[in-house]
Amino acid sequence: MDISVRKTILPLIRRARRIMAIAHITPDGDCIGSLLALGHALRTLGKQTVLVCADPVPQQFHFLPGQDLVTSDPEGEFHLLVSLDSSDIQRMGSVYRPGAFARVPLINIDHHATNVHFGTVNWVDTSAASTAEMVFDLIEEMAVPLTPDIALCLLTGVVTDTRCFRTSTTTSRTMSIATQLMEAGASLNQISEQVLNRRPLAVIRLWAEALSTLQLREQVIWAEITQAMRERAGMETNDSAGGLTSFLATAHEADVAVVFTEKPGGKVEASFRSVPGVDVSELAFQLGGGGHPQASGCTLNGTLEEVRKRVLAALDVSLARQRAQK
Amino acid sequence: MDISVRKTILPLIRRARRIMAIAHITPDGDCIGSLLALGHALRTLGKQTVLVCADPVPQQFHFLPGQDLVTSDPEGEFHLLVSLDSSDIQRMGSVYRPGAFARVPLINIDHHATNVHFGTVNWVDTSAASTAEMVFDLIEEMAVPLTPDIALCLLTGVVTDTRCFRTSTTTSRTMSIATQLMEAGASLNQISEQVLNRRPLAVIRLWAEALSTLQLREQVIWAEITQAMRERAGMETNDSAGGLTSFLATAHEADVAVVFTEKPGGKVEASFRSVPGVDVSELAFQLGGGGHPQASGCTLNGTLEEVRKRVLAALDVSLARQRAQK
Repeated sequence: MDISVRKTILPLIRRARRIMAIAHITPDGDCIGSLLALGHALRTLGKQTVLVCADPVPQQFHFLPGQDLVTSDPEGEFHLLVSLDSSDIQRMGSVYRPGAFARVPLINIDHHATNVHFGTVNWVDTSAASTAEMVFDLIEEMAVPLTPDIALCLLTGVVTDTRCFRTSTTTSRTMSIATQLMEAGASLNQISEQVLNRRPLAVIRLWAEALSTLQLREQVIWAEITQAMRERAGMETNDSAGGLTSFLATAHEADVAVVFTEKPGGKVEASFRSVPGVDVSELAFQLGGGGHPQASGCTLNGTLEEVRKRVLAALDVSLARQRAQK
Repeated sequence: MDISVRKTILPLIRRARRIMAIAHITPDGDCIGSLLALGHALRTLGKQTVLVCADPVPQQFHFLPGQDLVTSDPEGEFHLLVSLDSSDIQRMGSVYRPGAFARVPLINIDHHATNVHFGTVNWVDTSAASTAEMVFDLIEEMAVPLTPDIALCLLTGVVTDTRCFRTSTTTSRTMSIATQLMEAGASLNQISEQVLNRRPLAVIRLWAEALSTLQLREQVIWAEITQAMRERAGMETNDSAGGLTSFLATAHEADVAVVFTEKPGGKVEASFRSVPGVDVSELAFQLGGGGHPQASGCTLNGTLEEVRKRVLAALDVSLARQRAQK
């Protein structure tokens, strides 16, 4: 942790009596793990801590200690807000009330390159593979002991954001933190089984259908998921397609993979993955979404065909510009 | 490393001038990585070292330094043989000539529980997630510096045998070794990209077809790959199906996943994966194959249908016995 960050963040936490920590909408393992770990640590320091997420904690993270205390309806006054893993204020969703919170200091902790530095204090470390790694540092700085509960939450954040150490963002520092978290009592195996190694059979059936729509043009591979496919496969409304985009991105022949998913209300979600050296975060940002250079997404109005055409055309322009710059 | 092992293995290596190290047939990342790393280390000690594998090094491991020196036709006399990652003599294939090698000491280094202790010295550590972790210890004991080349070979072994730290065999010691290998210059990202994150498009097309054969009965999920499917998908003869069995094993509803692959010459390969607590190595062993409790395989004569019926029946018996013992 940077000295200037330490000098601003730690006093803010020390002075605050009642703290609200906030995960982002459509929460993933990194924001939930970071949120819960920070919650455990702040309570150890005797802080009244409210953990907030506008959307429910997904089922697959219900094994994490403390997840039942996350609320979408925080009440009362706060002396400090801490945003975790959000790149802008909108990512916090409805739980961030600009009017009510205008005078409350906000610490913005994030590792996304697309972070717009919306906080009173902005600790944005794009070299971290996960926000959980940053919270690991923060908890160490706060001199809170690494309990098995904290370790499990943080390791879940690391594992999910690195797809179990497979992303190009994974460093020896990531591995060293994972080692320390395991030594502190976190079971990597439990996390793999809960979060990575298990999918509902419905998701596997969905892959079978979605893979039949596979297309490759130049270095872009894509597939489509319709609402009818999801119904036939027996998917629950909020079930994700379990890493289909990452799987498509494993194709030797592709630099970019896209999965288009039909959503209720005439919307289509496009999720992007790319090989190192090709950036899909700019494209997502330009289309109103966000993410990382190698993993991003956006949601657009239109039919599958309309959105596919629009996104692939924008992707072609973005790839051509990136190639020209090399 | 056990003191008794250290006392027997190190003197054998010290005394030998010309050493042959042997990987197993149908080589994987662990036996190739272990073989190459040991080769680099032995040459550093001034040993004449011949690295041997009965089958060619698969294309995906051609990025490993020294792989071009692996031969299937070793010549001359040897003072010492070292078998890496083989659970029995047959796994070494045709390169092990019982007559010629009867009087040559053989060090058997392996982490498979099914190892039959066929060596003059047997160092079998079933707590190691990979043979590469054992070779890491051995190289440390031999006081050979961890060069970037050695580190890359060993990390490839660790990553492939743990499916990038996802198996139940992965411990904090595995993570600590991986951290040290990365600090010594091995790029986890390079390995992920080469070995895990990339598949030929043909494999993805094959998955699309194979997943359409998906079946689930009680807690067993299975799929089939015919030769016709492989041809339609454009697969090369030796290309593997790239982890389809592991993928099927992610189904919540399944305890065991099986993929049946039609092979030339009227044979069918069955590959097994299971959740922790369910053992598929006994079954594979009984059917003439081998492997680990959670990942094993065998090859049988017959049509797809014949082998499927025979294997699923044997699997039912094995699962019933395991349930009865709990």
